[in-house]
Amino acid sequence: MRTDVAIIGAGPAGLLLAHLLAQDGIESVVIESRTQEYVAARIRAGILESSSVDLLTSVGLGAGVQAHGDEHRGIYLQWPSERHHLDFVDLVGRSVWVYGQTQLQADLVTASEAAGRTVFYDTSDAELHDLETDHPFVTFTDDAGARQRIDALAIAGCDGSFGPSRAAMPSDKRDSWERVYPYSWLGILADVAPSTDELIYAWHPDGFGMHSMRSATVSRLYLQVPNGTDVADWSDDAIWDALATRLGHGQDGWTLTPGPITDKSVLPMRSFVQSPMRHGRLFLAGDAAHTVPPTGAKGLNLAIADVALLAPALGRLVRKNDFALADAYSDTALRRVWRCEHFSWWMTTMLHVSGDPFDAQLQLSQLRWVTSSAHGAAGLAENYAGLPIGF
Amino acid sequence: MRTDVAIIGAGPAGLLLAHLLAQDGIESVVIESRTQEYVAARIRAGILESSSVDLLTSVGLGAGVQAHGDEHRGIYLQWPSERHHLDFVDLVGRSVWVYGQTQLQADLVTASEAAGRTVFYDTSDAELHDLETDHPFVTFTDDAGARQRIDALAIAGCDGSFGPSRAAMPSDKRDSWERVYPYSWLGILADVAPSTDELIYAWHPDGFGMHSMRSATVSRLYLQVPNGTDVADWSDDAIWDALATRLGHGQDGWTLTPGPITDKSVLPMRSFVQSPMRHGRLFLAGDAAHTVPPTGAKGLNLAIADVALLAPALGRLVRKNDFALADAYSDTALRRVWRCEHFSWWMTTMLHVSGDPFDAQLQLSQLRWVTSSAHGAAGLAENYAGLPIGF
Repeated sequence: MRTDVAIIGAGPAGLLLAHLLAQDGIESVVIESRTQEYVAARIRAGILESSSVDLLTSVGLGAGVQAHGDEHRGIYLQWPSERHHLDFVDLVGRSVWVYGQTQLQADLVTASEAAGRTVFYDTSDAELHDLETDHPFVTFTDDAGARQRIDALAIAGCDGSFGPSRAAMPSDKRDSWERVYPYSWLGILADVAPSTDELIYAWHPDGFGMHSMRSATVSRLYLQVPNGTDVADWSDDAIWDALATRLGHGQDGWTLTPGPITDKSVLPMRSFVQSPMRHGRLFLAGDAAHTVPPTGAKGLNLAIADVALLAPALGRLVRKNDFALADAYSDTALRRVWRCEHFSWWMTTMLHVSGDPFDAQLQLSQLRWVTSSAHGAAGLAENYAGLPIGF
Repeated sequence: MRTDVAIIGAGPAGLLLAHLLAQDGIESVVIESRTQEYVAARIRAGILESSSVDLLTSVGLGAGVQAHGDEHRGIYLQWPSERHHLDFVDLVGRSVWVYGQTQLQADLVTASEAAGRTVFYDTSDAELHDLETDHPFVTFTDDAGARQRIDALAIAGCDGSFGPSRAAMPSDKRDSWERVYPYSWLGILADVAPSTDELIYAWHPDGFGMHSMRSATVSRLYLQVPNGTDVADWSDDAIWDALATRLGHGQDGWTLTPGPITDKSVLPMRSFVQSPMRHGRLFLAGDAAHTVPPTGAKGLNLAIADVALLAPALGRLVRKNDFALADAYSDTALRRVWRCEHFSWWMTTMLHVSGDPFDAQLQLSQLRWVTSSAHGAAGLAENYAGLPIGF
């Protein structure tokens, strides 16, 4: 079959790109290696920057977040015996929204289905061809076992860290940078009302702890654990005990309310950037080009920002054979990517215990500064609440 | 002999403390292991925070810095192809002063001699005794070889990282934190007018480079070099060539003017903190309690801030047997110490090449942010220009 843009990956980046392209009159076809159910259910990010919400709202995808999202003015930063609130709205005039990636994914699927757009799920053996020509194409096996081919004017790789898009770029034409952190997150979902109105980021000698949430009745919490941790080694009681200790249960009358754990998983922490984000007529967006550790909640927002740049670039390429924005895409996107990479690394290394006692004192000194200096606090807020789209 | 306070060390911390105590009517005797000529000539820091200058001025020691110091509004931060000026006065309302430690030392010696205060130079085998009693004393051998004893109500250890004061504190009653950096500075003094009006801090793939100055006719410059570097391996030409490359000679019309090198040395980079800064009637100030790497120019300013806290504490101890400020001294001083330790580590690790390509990208991203975000710039300025004394 023939379309304007072949999109690899039906996660938030791929489906949002298809939506933005359609608004500009550009056709696309999406292929996804997972089943629709798997993509719909996978638990990922939960925080949207205001500029992400503004973008979604401006293209008719804001009803869900407006109805069911929870706007937060800031976060809590704490260490044993001290909890401080950073109010992003006061500091930099922007808020953030709690809205799960599963919810956004559902909104995107609804819009995609309402518009009758073509999405192939459960595909396999996707291959990208002739990227350096003006007639690139993708081949794959569909869910019925038939080999398919999509001819397009451009291909968008929105298929995450392990998809075929990045791998299709010649290794001698790209650079990459990576940092693997010496710790992971043990994350849980629990059917219990959050014990906090806004997210708590907690430094503790035992390791980082975090209290997030998905809704008024679903809590999301994290513990720093060693790499290689098996979830089976952490009983529900042990998890709640560690969370109570690290989050300061009992301090100043604050209590952590445990509840039934419905999901338990270990998340590795990695920073990764590939440059450029484009090769010929292939353009990468989101995790296909870069990964951030989850501290700071940048991953999903960065994918949205990439797509917001990529859609108009592909629009001009398809409609006018004009490559001005397409040629600028990688450099423009990477400016924001590296800002977010730095911020995510900074939040991560400020809050996770490394085992080095000097590091611990630097972390506490930095936390005291960030929570007591208007400049320190605004610096964190500016990055966390997010830069304007197009930065 | 008997005095109120025995001071170990006749560097800036020790002589300033003697001066402040004398203004409060408190007697002191200073002993120093080096000769007066050695202490007068050693080349150390060169930047005073405004609050350090204000303190010196308020106690009659400001004439030299006012007459011969050079007030700077800020610094330059650069990396290949970009140089940015951070204006601390615009950002946080405070400036810094270029004034060499040798100049300040001369002012302090002049004041000390004018007041006829007792300073023993060229002493050896100093020992501290009975620190946990109310009659501590110091013994030492004077420059004529005679054994001497000073009885005092308190002892101030202003004798640097390797003096006897810190070592006199029982090791089971103190904690320490240390970080040795994997690089050093090769520093030169040159008889040539500075090629810049304010200090240049330069990130470069070859390593950090810095252009500082001591006066209108004397330049001070630094190169990041590997630990263990022998100055003999760096010819004057090689030094100027490396400085020209790292500082951007020829970029945008800027040129580096070389000149005769009058001093060449390798400085190791270390962070060190001991806590507490007091044991019984012994009180540590300056490098005796803590060391910072020189990036950020905090060492001398931190010593001045310690002494500004210690003098009134010792005044109340001596005159009224009141320990309120003496008991608070260590905790109060360590708040500022850890702020400066963090800032010095931050400036150092932002600007020195580690060899890790991901680090290099983080550094460039951070430099871009610090030079483009008002919050980032003000955060650096607030720390560099210095916190108020008493923070």
